[in-house]
Amino acid sequence: MAIELYWGSGSPFAWRVMLTLEIKKLPYESKLLQFSEGQHKTAEYLKLNPRGKVPTLKDGDFALYESLAIMVYLDRKYPEPQLFGKTPEETGLIWRTILECESYLMSANDKVVRPIFFGKGLDRVDEIAQAAQSIRDELKSLDARLSRDNWLVGGAISAADIAVFPAVQLLLRAASKEAAQPLNLGVLPFAQNFPNLAKWVQRIEALPNYQRTYPPHWR
Amino acid sequence: MAIELYWGSGSPFAWRVMLTLEIKKLPYESKLLQFSEGQHKTAEYLKLNPRGKVPTLKDGDFALYESLAIMVYLDRKYPEPQLFGKTPEETGLIWRTILECESYLMSANDKVVRPIFFGKGLDRVDEIAQAAQSIRDELKSLDARLSRDNWLVGGAISAADIAVFPAVQLLLRAASKEAAQPLNLGVLPFAQNFPNLAKWVQRIEALPNYQRTYPPHWR
Repeated sequence: MAIELYWGSGSPFAWRVMLTLEIKKLPYESKLLQFSEGQHKTAEYLKLNPRGKVPTLKDGDFALYESLAIMVYLDRKYPEPQLFGKTPEETGLIWRTILECESYLMSANDKVVRPIFFGKGLDRVDEIAQAAQSIRDELKSLDARLSRDNWLVGGAISAADIAVFPAVQLLLRAASKEAAQPLNLGVLPFAQNFPNLAKWVQRIEALPNYQRTYPPHWR
Repeated sequence: MAIELYWGSGSPFAWRVMLTLEIKKLPYESKLLQFSEGQHKTAEYLKLNPRGKVPTLKDGDFALYESLAIMVYLDRKYPEPQLFGKTPEETGLIWRTILECESYLMSANDKVVRPIFFGKGLDRVDEIAQAAQSIRDELKSLDARLSRDNWLVGGAISAADIAVFPAVQLLLRAASKEAAQPLNLGVLPFAQNFPNLAKWVQRIEALPNYQRTYPPHWR
């Protein structure tokens, strides 16, 4: 039975799983849910994922949600190429990078990206400025790591790159919006402020079938 | 060279790693940091962990932080007993449970536990009530799972149990404080409200060497 992926356009969490599937060259049936039509809250979908979020993966009879859990599952079930490290040390560093992204970059992102996209809370100037500082700190630290290596951990693309990438793309998209201009986020011009990170983004964009993972409503 | 663990009393993140070390019967040198004396912010410690948080593990020359990353590292390096699942499906479900704990239980916990312990923000009644509702929902869902099985995933203790347990203990401690009484959290009496979860807590408390992991300042 084919793998089915329930996802939503622009979800950084779903994007991670799509990149994982493409890098592992796993065919899958795309089930694009329209949030605007509440397709993530239907009784049928809530049976697969009671939290009503994306992504959810079905592999035969087995359904799983939480993007990072899906990535680990796929890596154990379909180990080529291995994305969670070849040694215990690499595995530890990959997870450290992913969890730092969750705890610091993505939570700061939330406070900046949502106001820009939804036009709500743009007046919380101090909170946004503080979050933007955290974002710049995180990007700077990632940029420094990428000055030495092509990928965040080890010599090849890993789950760390895949987990972090959609968060960076989401931020870049938000930072380019008109509503972001008065906020002075200090993110753009990206190639000037974070040159190694910018090259790393291009490296991922050059992966085969990358375009298939790109959020359709961003085009 | 021995394993060294830098930790702080009462940190649920450090507690996870101590439980992992005890369950794997790995000897380690305990480096208890006193937050009140800023021992997590010394130049020496920041070299090991630039974020100045606990836990940090040193295993020979290799230093690692982020509690879940340390748990995965230990599991790959010292695989007995295996804590992250015997099959891809088990691994996926263990991670789903851990990540749900991070995203829902622990973030709601934060909004309740901090005000109680530090006496700040206790007037944010609506926010606390909403967080308490999320906490009860999460506990109810865990309790239902434990009505069928002794452990959260599979037939044996796993990283899911170890990761969730300190969050539950922290909550129970906060809920028993005098400052918690006016908040009507609906958590206590625990054995009455969440009977299966209460038995699961006892099951973990009965593990060999559990007492060595118990926060010293809680005694």
